[in-house]
Amino acid sequence: MGRTALSARRIQSEYRTYVLLGDGESAEGSVWEAANAASMDRLDNFCGITDVNALGQSRPTMWQHDMEQFERRWRAFGWHPIVIDGHDLTAILDALDEARKTKGQPTMILARTIKGKGVSFVEGRDGWHGKPFKKGEELDRAIAELEKQFVPVQPGGPAANLSSQISKPPSTSRPVVTPKPVAAPAYTMGEQVATREAYGAALVKLGEADPLVVALDADVKNSTFSDRFEKAFPDRFYENFIAEQVMVGAAMGMAARGAIPFPSTFACFLTRAADFIRMAAISNVNIKLAGSHAGVSIGEDGPSQMALEDLAMCRTQPNYAVLYPCDAVSAERLVVLAAYHPGPAYIRTSRPKTPVIYSNEETFTVGGLKVLRESGEDAAAVIGAGVTVFEALKAYDQLKASGTAIRVIDLYSVAPFDRAGLVSAGRASGGHLITVEDHYAAGGIGDAVAEAVADSGLTVHRLAVREIARSGKPEELLDRYGISATHIVDAVRALREQPSARIRR
Amino acid sequence: MGRTALSARRIQSEYRTYVLLGDGESAEGSVWEAANAASMDRLDNFCGITDVNALGQSRPTMWQHDMEQFERRWRAFGWHPIVIDGHDLTAILDALDEARKTKGQPTMILARTIKGKGVSFVEGRDGWHGKPFKKGEELDRAIAELEKQFVPVQPGGPAANLSSQISKPPSTSRPVVTPKPVAAPAYTMGEQVATREAYGAALVKLGEADPLVVALDADVKNSTFSDRFEKAFPDRFYENFIAEQVMVGAAMGMAARGAIPFPSTFACFLTRAADFIRMAAISNVNIKLAGSHAGVSIGEDGPSQMALEDLAMCRTQPNYAVLYPCDAVSAERLVVLAAYHPGPAYIRTSRPKTPVIYSNEETFTVGGLKVLRESGEDAAAVIGAGVTVFEALKAYDQLKASGTAIRVIDLYSVAPFDRAGLVSAGRASGGHLITVEDHYAAGGIGDAVAEAVADSGLTVHRLAVREIARSGKPEELLDRYGISATHIVDAVRALREQPSARIRR
Repeated sequence: MGRTALSARRIQSEYRTYVLLGDGESAEGSVWEAANAASMDRLDNFCGITDVNALGQSRPTMWQHDMEQFERRWRAFGWHPIVIDGHDLTAILDALDEARKTKGQPTMILARTIKGKGVSFVEGRDGWHGKPFKKGEELDRAIAELEKQFVPVQPGGPAANLSSQISKPPSTSRPVVTPKPVAAPAYTMGEQVATREAYGAALVKLGEADPLVVALDADVKNSTFSDRFEKAFPDRFYENFIAEQVMVGAAMGMAARGAIPFPSTFACFLTRAADFIRMAAISNVNIKLAGSHAGVSIGEDGPSQMALEDLAMCRTQPNYAVLYPCDAVSAERLVVLAAYHPGPAYIRTSRPKTPVIYSNEETFTVGGLKVLRESGEDAAAVIGAGVTVFEALKAYDQLKASGTAIRVIDLYSVAPFDRAGLVSAGRASGGHLITVEDHYAAGGIGDAVAEAVADSGLTVHRLAVREIARSGKPEELLDRYGISATHIVDAVRALREQPSARIRR
Repeated sequence: MGRTALSARRIQSEYRTYVLLGDGESAEGSVWEAANAASMDRLDNFCGITDVNALGQSRPTMWQHDMEQFERRWRAFGWHPIVIDGHDLTAILDALDEARKTKGQPTMILARTIKGKGVSFVEGRDGWHGKPFKKGEELDRAIAELEKQFVPVQPGGPAANLSSQISKPPSTSRPVVTPKPVAAPAYTMGEQVATREAYGAALVKLGEADPLVVALDADVKNSTFSDRFEKAFPDRFYENFIAEQVMVGAAMGMAARGAIPFPSTFACFLTRAADFIRMAAISNVNIKLAGSHAGVSIGEDGPSQMALEDLAMCRTQPNYAVLYPCDAVSAERLVVLAAYHPGPAYIRTSRPKTPVIYSNEETFTVGGLKVLRESGEDAAAVIGAGVTVFEALKAYDQLKASGTAIRVIDLYSVAPFDRAGLVSAGRASGGHLITVEDHYAAGGIGDAVAEAVADSGLTVHRLAVREIARSGKPEELLDRYGISATHIVDAVRALREQPSARIRR
């Protein structure tokens, strides 16, 4: 929430940011992540107002009307708290004034209120959450009671200025900046580069081309390589420390003000922000998430660090673009595509170094795929993405040596999806598709492919992680969990013993 | 974390709970959710120790060695903070002693430490996170430096008692309680009851039968109906207010002490705890999550309240049982099955009332399904779950009126999955399966069915929510988003114009 305020500070805008909170929701950890972030950045252009009405949905709140509980928490978190009677208009105006004058820290106005105030039969009573008055007697009585209490504003009285015209805020629109072209990748074919490292390089190039690009971190910038962006553009880099909800929430706020934000962390830690990722989909917010260290290919760090459900988390949402590069060239290209793709996007990067397989001039599209190997007599089309592209290429070599040809596809765009390209590849490969992914079996690439080709008559055989993985060397784990070249070779050989698919055209 | 301590309190056990925290992770909101929960419950049998070494993974932490920042936050959250030099053994022992003597509140020992202390070339230096010493010179030098500083414990000296035997803790094992049989459902066929209400009823019956069953809420107990359990067993009910991470974390802690915990909230709010749900899978923890108000069938409350990705969130994890009842009888039966299914389970309940379709004696299994309608000439098998079972039954009636028979299946166990039952139903229904789910298209029932029947030659046609849903009446939304009886009827009619599937036997 505070990051629209932070954004204002950095663009030297005069606008102030106000946030309304409920007392019940103040139990959510995300509130305290945001509280830390705002005080750390000394956002005195930022003012929160908590409506402390003491009633939750199902019962009185944790602290009810004990205002001191709220006050001491916000003060401890570095805010300037002001406790007021939330029904006193003069007190509200004074508090807003005090907030404007407070320097060096954000202000939290803690407004003690009575839920349903002025309506005798609900005032301060539990059990009215989300409940409308019944039309007829209940509603009529409530309106009559409120009308009886209505006091017209007296000239010169305490709330007199409330009846004046509110002046329009000054325009905060900035000159439209046409981004410059983004510098092309500059790798050597076969060079070993991790896609996470190429992500960092691409961020810098994007930053050079477009001042709207910003980056956010949650204390892993040296692993995701977003520290490259920080070094180049310290004013457009936001460190959130270990607090993923506020990182993604801040990105959402900045996107609302026109920025193109790239929040990145280990893919597994993005699950901490799953609700924010979901809400970004609902609001179609223009955030560009990046998750690194995805899959069993991280190796020794063990299952808590392996994101094996991140593709599912983002792919489930109807409007996320989900991109998964396998080499440095495609990583750079996909980061740029994500930046200018309207709406939310997720980029999955990998820990291990992988060889560059695309030329620096290769072009990619959101919704595309690449056929890396093909012949007129392919026994199956093997669909990989990220690290498994290289397992598929290894399988190709092994099978070729024994006289079997396979088609190899890099499905770098998991959502949206090149259905036609995939179906045509499958039809040209005996009707057989084999998916191989460093991800759990549900919700990932296998499911995406199976749905896309459902009406085509193609068969889909899936290789994916099907149990809780453990620690080991990357190559050991790829093999142990069934997604290595060996398993692809076995799957292709098993297919040859089956009747060919009946392809519908 | 605090809930094993809370559990100790409630079972009158003397054990104390200790939790180690990092200073970096203290930026996570989940820490402050737990901090509130522990002080609210005045857990003086609970002691945290924060290792404040001032260095995160990628840079110094937010508050570094400013101990007052930590102290004032923990004090504000109702804890007794003790700041010590974390390298001073006497200070550590004294602090643990003080924690034991502190009454009415939990203690947080804030231990100021120097990372890498005693090794000159890393002491207090950034850039050593997760980095081992290089074998050879680096490692040898570190060991030599540490050995030089080793001070043998002096009899009577400050840390002398550290060298004594640590006595075994007294056994905390409680008498094994054999649960009584759980009371059977007692509904009338056709009675209108929401599955969430039956969930509440089942919890009470489980609670009567088994003292190990506990329930946890996040301020929606009057909507999930877990308030029924609270009324019956106030000592086994844990209110977490609006804080889902600590609710699920607490359930994990209680499961670790042998309880059978049911944390429940609206299914959409469980995404706040997605990382905890993931970690429960990795550790195979015996928690029984329940999410209510799932799907567009909630109606007017709008997309932020519709969980349309919850099945995917849990089904992605390899070891979750995912159960989805459609009526009150199956809801009660599945809640009991979940309780005694080893490992994590998720139960999805619905907001609207639905008619009871099962007799009170009907039996269910984890991994089962029910064929509700069948004939010798079914044109397709329609697979619903939850609210869509009733859309499938309506479609059956409409199609029957025009002379077309369909098979209707209630897939109440989404994971694990009755593959054989489904394949045999599909083979007996022209080889055509139609799935219909109140969930996004990815990661849910359509994907589960498609994968299960992948090698069978059956066709799978999916009806699911494919865009961000909006507010409306439940029946309007089911139709608008393509999962109503009308859409099922259309899908069946469209199939009749296609060639029949080639079924492999």
